[in-house]
Amino acid sequence: MATHTKPVLHGYFRSSCSWRVRIAFALKGIEYDQVPVNLIKDGGQQLTEEYKKLNPMQQVPAVEVDGIRLSQSLAVIQYIDETRPGPRLLPADPVKRAQVRMISDLIASGIQPLQNLYVLQKMGAEKVQWAQHFIVRGFEALEPMLKQTAGKYCVGDEISMADVCLVPQVYNAERFKVDVDAYPTIKMLNQTLVELEAFKVTHPSRQPDTPVDLRA
Amino acid sequence: MATHTKPVLHGYFRSSCSWRVRIAFALKGIEYDQVPVNLIKDGGQQLTEEYKKLNPMQQVPAVEVDGIRLSQSLAVIQYIDETRPGPRLLPADPVKRAQVRMISDLIASGIQPLQNLYVLQKMGAEKVQWAQHFIVRGFEALEPMLKQTAGKYCVGDEISMADVCLVPQVYNAERFKVDVDAYPTIKMLNQTLVELEAFKVTHPSRQPDTPVDLRA
Repeated sequence: MATHTKPVLHGYFRSSCSWRVRIAFALKGIEYDQVPVNLIKDGGQQLTEEYKKLNPMQQVPAVEVDGIRLSQSLAVIQYIDETRPGPRLLPADPVKRAQVRMISDLIASGIQPLQNLYVLQKMGAEKVQWAQHFIVRGFEALEPMLKQTAGKYCVGDEISMADVCLVPQVYNAERFKVDVDAYPTIKMLNQTLVELEAFKVTHPSRQPDTPVDLRA
Repeated sequence: MATHTKPVLHGYFRSSCSWRVRIAFALKGIEYDQVPVNLIKDGGQQLTEEYKKLNPMQQVPAVEVDGIRLSQSLAVIQYIDETRPGPRLLPADPVKRAQVRMISDLIASGIQPLQNLYVLQKMGAEKVQWAQHFIVRGFEALEPMLKQTAGKYCVGDEISMADVCLVPQVYNAERFKVDVDAYPTIKMLNQTLVELEAFKVTHPSRQPDTPVDLRA
């Protein structure tokens, strides 16, 4: 059996997938070390041969923990949830677990991959419209879904992986000037969540690698 | 508590995400009904108001089961795995579970969303190169990852959700003329898997909605 070790998170302050992992660690009360990977500097530090060993997809985040290397934020979050104490991020009820995963995957497979840095770099001049298009399309689906599942949080009144995914995606939507007011349920949930300590301390404006002019 | 009902799968013969769900049902030995949703005919039957209620993302698959509506294939598969008997699709060991999810998410978030029908329709003349680019990029990462995790199957010697994701992605790669021979581990795993009954009976060439000229 693997021994539990302090996780090392290789991430970037503004990466929404890195932020998901930071929120999960904070909600679980887990201490971790951060190693910044600057996605812009030197043409992208995620492209080095050294980083490739951590995550062959050459994306952030990558996490070293318990003697293994993990990538894909939702896989990391669920591993941490299953092996560490603290509030669970997947509900006990199977239907609610399924709804949490459905919402998380809608964001993680249906929206984020289409507006991430790598794809946008390929889009050239059209990149803002492209990102807006896919975020709007995703939010049009997410809004009625959340209307059915939400209580105080995305699924009922227990905080979950779905909330961990929602807030960084809303942050991206705002960066790309999507009108979040058009989605009252998303907006309300986000407003509730961003007030929580675990979301505040992990915010892109407050990380070790946040540039001085973007610091809160 | 929800009663267990026979699942109804709304899918499309050639959709790789629909195929994932069909394989999972077959591996678990679960009977289900299929309702075909033709993604091409009538401008796309997934775009109707009626279908939108099943999956607001207007994509396949959508599954009605146990009184709820689920979308996002990996959420569906994990729900079925957690609520039904039969061989488990997520291993018992947390490290292996994490590796299964990492591989599944690499495919489901890192490759498939960038080469699905909706995105390709937006790419116009460049669509084949676009799809190839993202499949190759994903396979370049998947190959070294699988080299580390694979036994007889993607993660060790137990079949899992990762295998359920791999085979339909290789099928897509072949459709887009990606040279799968360049990825010996992927190729070998795929060859083993496609010989299994659960992968054969669920193949796109053998579904109720498979057009006559594409039938095996």
